Amino acid sequence: MIFRRYKDEGLAHYSYLIADEGQAAVIDPRRDIDVYLTDAARDQAYIVSVFETHRNEDYLIGSCEIEAATGARIFHADSQWDYQYGEPVEDGQTWRIGRLKIKAIHTPGHTPGSMSYLLHDPDGNPWVLFSGDALFSGDAGRVDLLGEDRLPEMAGMLYDSIFNKILPLGDDVLLCPAHGAGSVCGSKIAERTWTTIGMERKSNPLCKVKSEQEFLELHGKMLDRPPYFLNMEELNLAGPPILGTLPVLKPLNPKAFEKEMTKAQLVDTRDQFGFGGGHIPGSLSMYLPILPSFAGWFLSYDKPILFLCDPDDTEEIVRTMIRMGFDQLSGYLGKGILGWAVSGNIADHIPLVPVSDFCSMMKKGGDQFVLDVRDDDEFKGEGLKHATHIHLTHLLEEIDEIPKGHPVFPLCRSGNRAMLAASFLKREGWKDINLLMGGLSAWRAYGCNFDL
Amino acid sequence: MIFRRYKDEGLAHYSYLIADEGQAAVIDPRRDIDVYLTDAARDQAYIVSVFETHRNEDYLIGSCEIEAATGARIFHADSQWDYQYGEPVEDGQTWRIGRLKIKAIHTPGHTPGSMSYLLHDPDGNPWVLFSGDALFSGDAGRVDLLGEDRLPEMAGMLYDSIFNKILPLGDDVLLCPAHGAGSVCGSKIAERTWTTIGMERKSNPLCKVKSEQEFLELHGKMLDRPPYFLNMEELNLAGPPILGTLPVLKPLNPKAFEKEMTKAQLVDTRDQFGFGGGHIPGSLSMYLPILPSFAGWFLSYDKPILFLCDPDDTEEIVRTMIRMGFDQLSGYLGKGILGWAVSGNIADHIPLVPVSDFCSMMKKGGDQFVLDVRDDDEFKGEGLKHATHIHLTHLLEEIDEIPKGHPVFPLCRSGNRAMLAASFLKREGWKDINLLMGGLSAWRAYGCNFDL
Amino acid sequence: MIFRRYKDEGLAHYSYLIADEGQAAVIDPRRDIDVYLTDAARDQAYIVSVFETHRNEDYLIGSCEIEAATGARIFHADSQWDYQYGEPVEDGQTWRIGRLKIKAIHTPGHTPGSMSYLLHDPDGNPWVLFSGDALFSGDAGRVDLLGEDRLPEMAGMLYDSIFNKILPLGDDVLLCPAHGAGSVCGSKIAERTWTTIGMERKSNPLCKVKSEQEFLELHGKMLDRPPYFLNMEELNLAGPPILGTLPVLKPLNPKAFEKEMTKAQLVDTRDQFGFGGGHIPGSLSMYLPILPSFAGWFLSYDKPILFLCDPDDTEEIVRTMIRMGFDQLSGYLGKGILGWAVSGNIADHIPLVPVSDFCSMMKKGGDQFVLDVRDDDEFKGEGLKHATHIHLTHLLEEIDEIPKGHPVFPLCRSGNRAMLAASFLKREGWKDINLLMGGLSAWRAYGCNFDL
Amino acid sequence: MIFRRYKDEGLAHYSYLIADEGQAAVIDPRRDIDVYLTDAARDQAYIVSVFETHRNEDYLIGSCEIEAATGARIFHADSQWDYQYGEPVEDGQTWRIGRLKIKAIHTPGHTPGSMSYLLHDPDGNPWVLFSGDALFSGDAGRVDLLGEDRLPEMAGMLYDSIFNKILPLGDDVLLCPAHGAGSVCGSKIAERTWTTIGMERKSNPLCKVKSEQEFLELHGKMLDRPPYFLNMEELNLAGPPILGTLPVLKPLNPKAFEKEMTKAQLVDTRDQFGFGGGHIPGSLSMYLPILPSFAGWFLSYDKPILFLCDPDDTEEIVRTMIRMGFDQLSGYLGKGILGWAVSGNIADHIPLVPVSDFCSMMKKGGDQFVLDVRDDDEFKGEGLKHATHIHLTHLLEEIDEIPKGHPVFPLCRSGNRAMLAASFLKREGWKDINLLMGGLSAWRAYGCNFDL
Repeated sequence: MIFRRYKDEGLAHYSYLIADEGQAAVIDPRRDIDVYLTDAARDQAYIVSVFETHRNEDYLIGSCEIEAATGARIFHADSQWDYQYGEPVEDGQTWRIGRLKIKAIHTPGHTPGSMSYLLHDPDGNPWVLFSGDALFSGDAGRVDLLGEDRLPEMAGMLYDSIFNKILPLGDDVLLCPAHGAGSVCGSKIAERTWTTIGMERKSNPLCKVKSEQEFLELHGKMLDRPPYFLNMEELNLAGPPILGTLPVLKPLNPKAFEKEMTKAQLVDTRDQFGFGGGHIPGSLSMYLPILPSFAGWFLSYDKPILFLCDPDDTEEIVRTMIRMGFDQLSGYLGKGILGWAVSGNIADHIPLVPVSDFCSMMKKGGDQFVLDVRDDDEFKGEGLKHATHIHLTHLLEEIDEIPKGHPVFPLCRSGNRAMLAASFLKREGWKDINLLMGGLSAWRAYGCNFDL
Repeated sequence: MIFRRYKDEGLAHYSYLIADEGQAAVIDPRRDIDVYLTDAARDQAYIVSVFETHRNEDYLIGSCEIEAATGARIFHADSQWDYQYGEPVEDGQTWRIGRLKIKAIHTPGHTPGSMSYLLHDPDGNPWVLFSGDALFSGDAGRVDLLGEDRLPEMAGMLYDSIFNKILPLGDDVLLCPAHGAGSVCGSKIAERTWTTIGMERKSNPLCKVKSEQEFLELHGKMLDRPPYFLNMEELNLAGPPILGTLPVLKPLNPKAFEKEMTKAQLVDTRDQFGFGGGHIPGSLSMYLPILPSFAGWFLSYDKPILFLCDPDDTEEIVRTMIRMGFDQLSGYLGKGILGWAVSGNIADHIPLVPVSDFCSMMKKGGDQFVLDVRDDDEFKGEGLKHATHIHLTHLLEEIDEIPKGHPVFPLCRSGNRAMLAASFLKREGWKDINLLMGGLSAWRAYGCNFDL
Repeated sequence: MIFRRYKDEGLAHYSYLIADEGQAAVIDPRRDIDVYLTDAARDQAYIVSVFETHRNEDYLIGSCEIEAATGARIFHADSQWDYQYGEPVEDGQTWRIGRLKIKAIHTPGHTPGSMSYLLHDPDGNPWVLFSGDALFSGDAGRVDLLGEDRLPEMAGMLYDSIFNKILPLGDDVLLCPAHGAGSVCGSKIAERTWTTIGMERKSNPLCKVKSEQEFLELHGKMLDRPPYFLNMEELNLAGPPILGTLPVLKPLNPKAFEKEMTKAQLVDTRDQFGFGGGHIPGSLSMYLPILPSFAGWFLSYDKPILFLCDPDDTEEIVRTMIRMGFDQLSGYLGKGILGWAVSGNIADHIPLVPVSDFCSMMKKGGDQFVLDVRDDDEFKGEGLKHATHIHLTHLLEEIDEIPKGHPVFPLCRSGNRAMLAASFLKREGWKDINLLMGGLSAWRAYGCNFDL
Repeated sequence: MIFRRYKDEGLAHYSYLIADEGQAAVIDPRRDIDVYLTDAARDQAYIVSVFETHRNEDYLIGSCEIEAATGARIFHADSQWDYQYGEPVEDGQTWRIGRLKIKAIHTPGHTPGSMSYLLHDPDGNPWVLFSGDALFSGDAGRVDLLGEDRLPEMAGMLYDSIFNKILPLGDDVLLCPAHGAGSVCGSKIAERTWTTIGMERKSNPLCKVKSEQEFLELHGKMLDRPPYFLNMEELNLAGPPILGTLPVLKPLNPKAFEKEMTKAQLVDTRDQFGFGGGHIPGSLSMYLPILPSFAGWFLSYDKPILFLCDPDDTEEIVRTMIRMGFDQLSGYLGKGILGWAVSGNIADHIPLVPVSDFCSMMKKGGDQFVLDVRDDDEFKGEGLKHATHIHLTHLLEEIDEIPKGHPVFPLCRSGNRAMLAASFLKREGWKDINLLMGGLSAWRAYGCNFDL
């Protein structure tokens, strides 16, 4: 018997492969399915079923890709919506994978038709609950996807799912959700990489509320909704385009790259030091670890995308992008920023200011404009007097609030998001853009005698 | 029958594994021998012999390491020197590896006792010459290692070896030397990754000379000699210390790193953009591709070495360092320069100037001091009027020529060596250090209307 | 934060790596430690501690090997014994690995000083219990290691450990024992690859007893004890010899193999079909999956060991053997049994009889001697009228019960152990040895109209 | 600059990847193209061209597969035939891949439009000749493909190509043909894995002939032509079906396998010992190393194919089969022959007779029928008095010559082909089939005092 978990580090998305006696099933596969095919083959099993816990909005599901490769049957939840593929699941429906029993449990709230799947061990005991986006470690799925007016209704459904369907399964049952810490689908997901229903009952704040009302107050909120969600929602009903093989990101020489640049969006996935040191004018800084979180906000599906990146990162970049349906990938600059520069092209830079200098500067006063791009919760947790707060994802709409004649210092916790803001402002025409190295963390650790 | 070549990218060092009927031999192994053990096992062969073409001065040979792991016999050339291990080889000596015959041919010149090994194919035809440092693709081994007074003697030996021993073997024989393009052992080695004696006869300038005299004029030169050569020469006679397993570079958190810094040498292997963007004060910039070339010049064997690097590069760094006998490796900064900065430590930066700005600056004139750190041949090939030329490896002795009150712009072809010079000057107390992005290549490609 | 589990498939031994903020710890490492070093490096962490749950008797612990490679501190349980390395652990002792807290809990019974380690998650909640051999999934550690007279005492201790120390930690806590299904340390270990204290409380028969007395009756039994245990026990106190690198199994050609055979033990790890088809006279059949279970019974530490195996299996064989301290490995027959035969050497064979023929033969009656080599529990579960039962591991002492003039048919569930018995009898001089293909399983599935 | 060679071990087919400055080209790609895509990406190059040396008859070319994945242009030789894809090549045509020049040279003989491609090194010197099937190491391409009447014409062409086009290029030029030792395309190909034009001139028998007439006598022969060639020839003009991803061989449980067996061909790729020990009735024994040589003779394109194999071999099996266009692969028996037997199914066996017993038997005389299935050249080289010679590939047509009432002993050099003959005869109804372990090699090495 095999039970494997897969974590997509970028979206913090969990998927699962179970196998017994030559048969295998995948729960909530990602779109780049090679890992399931390889592992199932190694386990001498063949994928016969795919189970979806809900219509996903944050990534493209790999069910159809698996079906194309193996002929597996797809079982999808949310049958109230108009699916163009697979078979709808009903509450209580059961399946067998070898000696393993799987049972669907309707756990709505995140979506109206969300399903959890309860896996029993070979001896028939309830063993693992694949809870999708119903219940996470330390958090629960968002309930705002159908709009503000349906917020109480959805929160109520989720309260019921958690308290009347999931928690009663018993403290001892393993809880295997669709997301882990770092996901945009739950900002408070705990770092506990494996959890149980009992651990959630004891330490998940949403499982400790006293009433549906308290649950609604705590959890019933409208959250940011990246524009790419819409695209995911449509494609996850229609069935995402079949890729076949994982695409290869094409290396381009500086000349070819320059030509493609005229029609493409340009993303630089190096860190703030490399980007600050030198970058191609007009490029957006999205350090690879934050690419999954912000690509959906800052990139359009209408134009192809070009990358400046470490060549070793191209596979991860491709996986990240196609998981969000960004299939128009034109290539990357094969020889990097150095190749760009030695070819006589102009590169730009953004000064990275050491915290000691930044401290002196703030004490001295002056016309610098400090732009806090952290999210609202972070800002609430630790406000700043001498900074203007605009959440990074609102930058486009509120860009007019940023003065053009002043030195601007975008700021976030460590500087990665601030560099995205910096690069965005540069692209939009701002000139005097600078970065505090290491961001607010550096500031706090350094201990400047100034109340920022 | 198996015939494999291994290239150590850093030192451009070639080694070879041959195997037949369960027996294997390695020619000029590098010190990290795991690759030979693994491949021999995969080929179902066992390493019974190691052949050394000469006493190497530029890297530690892995013969003793293989002997310790497999019990193989070591056959070394240069028996005029006092070897503490292995068995001396005589001119004309032959061996069998399965059906393959190997014959030693004395080809002195690089060292007095250099041996080439002629491999015959299973049918008994001369097939491959392992020529060590006698003859390269497009170049030949240096003849200055025994000092200037013996230069004519050694060059004469090498002339004889090439013209009377190697070339007569026939145009059709494959030539497999100990170094390829990029090696410090031959600055003119051709890019032709596989070559034959005939190709050398036709296109290697040193094979086209008309007389010993012409050979001496063309090739009999004193070359730079990194200080670490001395260490290699001693250890390659005594037998390098046995490593057993490849060491692991220890990740250190900023606090532990800071503590180690007090007694260590600090090397930063990131590129000029990352280093320029932010680096730890006192660190030397040695971009990974140039680390093998300059570690032996700028680092001491007496103090441990710390690294700031991409975590994915640690294995390559360890291999590079132990190949040159730098076994005192204290670790690397686990979270990188970002971890350093967010912990509130001070990082420094070096401005990278776009070529357009540098062009304007030079046209305008001013007090900038342009320091050309390329080697003598490069400088001869393309001199600069407005730069002072000090070869990078002479910087230590001639550092007083560099003025302290001026903005200094170290310069090389692409900027990597210039950044090493820049970091060195910073460490030695210079303040106003800057870098032209992309170096002279950028300058040439850009086309500034100014005669630099 | 990192939490990884490693399963050694052969011994079904679990070890664990945890890491946080650059520090790592390993619980109950195996002797081939490369996997911990590699993963810790990848996680940018350095192993600072090793925790042992008890003095192991079934494998050599890798603690000293890790100490030699990293300088980690070793914390061992069972401090009542005379350890030659590491530091003793006390009940209640705590450690920190980054933000993770670990606490020792004295859980005696398997050994007097067994320790479990309770890991807390980054938020400080009890999270994972590393229970060593105290409690398994579906089973518990054996209590007979100190002899029959101390059986009640040890069983009483274990009862107390389980009921008063482990179960009270809460249903929700993950239980991570030192063994999984397939281990010789617990014949009833469940297939549930991840489990919780609650699942054990509900479904582990040993957690459902009503009294210490019932526990003793159910679990207080003397079990088989392979002779190699003694060796493990001694070395695990003294500290196993340091290996450095994983040894490589040397391929030998038929001539060299024959020479080594005169002084070595010969093991054939191919399956019953390959072994039956042709094998070297005098070799013992230990199909690779059963090698870890029977090497310690049938092999001696005094003589080197030779293998006939699939060349792709040599690494697994080496790992298996050195985990049990069999460090004298002479090599394997590089070209396999085919190479043996084509060289004109004599190979032997053992007829594999299809179940249909065996059925006819049994119905007909005759002088065939059916030898059931399954263990006592299996025999009790499903006895055979027409077979003589001698447990495989008792074969040596009871060999005289097997008649020499009759066709002998060793028998087990699938035939793998029976083939070991068959090869053993052949080596000891029996002539007419045969095998029922597929063993008792084939018999049952075929449905012969005869009451075996 | 990159220059890589790829060997498909089964068909001994060589293909080549060259790359420079971000561009890459492949010469004679195989159909499973993943390796080219991966390596080109690692080299930071993109495949822009595919060069075919001729219309292949022994494998499906991967050109269209590469075109589908990368958009590369395909240049094919043999433009006299009706290609459905790519662009025809003309004698003397040149291309650039970065700084590398490639020039087509018309070298007919194997086919009328065969092209060789001469690669120049970055300095512009002739460097490597990709000779396709014109000239091999120690052999040359067959000239009988257009039929016996055109034999002299084609041989004449090839003589001209070799002597007037290839050899004049110079002894020093590397020769990189499309096949190495072990290929069905040249039975005398030398083991010299790298060769030069000079080595061929000196030691290739076909380069040492004195006249066209002598060449024709030596080389102008009709050779065996496996039936699958026809299929290859058609598809290599039409463009083989695009696979996308490499197919995965599906593991089947015994029940599903049995069901598929009714409509499929059954191939067992284990060695003679495993097959002899036990196999499924009706299966053909094709030990994996001989699968590429005999699949095209014994298997039909009309029925799907099932495998019994080592699960680790499934990928190699799939690659082997799809290279020959056998795309109908139904799966393999997931649990192998052991799983088959324990499920109560009937397995068969073929006795493997040790050479000592076979010797006694032959001396004694009797009614055994020894069937020599070696090819005609082997038989001519070493005839047998007491054996009937029928080449393995003629077995089907001459099967009536094999008597049914006698014990039959198929025989070849080592036993692998003999076991294929044995399994074929069993499938066709013969009963008393046996095998001499290790074949004629064992016989010769053993030294039986009998003139076989």
